[in-house]
Amino acid sequence: MTVRVNASLDQILESFESEDSLLPVVVQDHQSKEVLMLAYVNRSALERSVETGKATYWSRSRNELWVKGESSGNIQEIVEIAYDCDADSFLYRVNQKGVACHTGKPSCFFNIIHSRGA
Amino acid sequence: MTVRVNASLDQILESFESEDSLLPVVVQDHQSKEVLMLAYVNRSALERSVETGKATYWSRSRNELWVKGESSGNIQEIVEIAYDCDADSFLYRVNQKGVACHTGKPSCFFNIIHSRGA
Repeated sequence: MTVRVNASLDQILESFESEDSLLPVVVQDHQSKEVLMLAYVNRSALERSVETGKATYWSRSRNELWVKGESSGNIQEIVEIAYDCDADSFLYRVNQKGVACHTGKPSCFFNIIHSRGA
Repeated sequence: MTVRVNASLDQILESFESEDSLLPVVVQDHQSKEVLMLAYVNRSALERSVETGKATYWSRSRNELWVKGESSGNIQEIVEIAYDCDADSFLYRVNQKGVACHTGKPSCFFNIIHSRGA
């Protein structure tokens, strides 16, 4: 196992205006490239994700740190964390154990509003 | 060209608390499945995206509707719009013309904080 850190985590943590600030995280399956869910992190959740290798978010409903899969077993092993050109959103590439969605579906984005086919 | 609408757009528009409410959109390349960017929509931007077939967002910096690629030519043709299990985020699957990022990179998520390899 090798760990490469291309950017300083400390620098990235400055993207959060305060301890309470939340930024969105796109969560993508590393193998299938399916978009699994969208969640939010504060500084602590991002730090914990890096330190533990398990995707950790801030639960806006429970108002607490949320280690994804801690109760269900459907954990997300972090493969890579990227941030965007504006440094105000993140992308977690993960190995998803089980399913991502609490409904039992593989991805949370199973509702289609609108679709165009050739 | 066929257009299928699985859920009522009117129902989804109720997800926005007010005219000013913004919700995040994950933008994914339909072919490569690469996550291209994260942007925000209000009701009008979502409606315009569905009506025109061109990805339209709310620019938080310019405080106006933003038809992606209108000036650069790097438009995003909507293939499918999905929403998540909580109906508080969206996924646009698009055909990206040119590149998604204003830096000239294909995706906005080109900065790696943290990477683990076997």
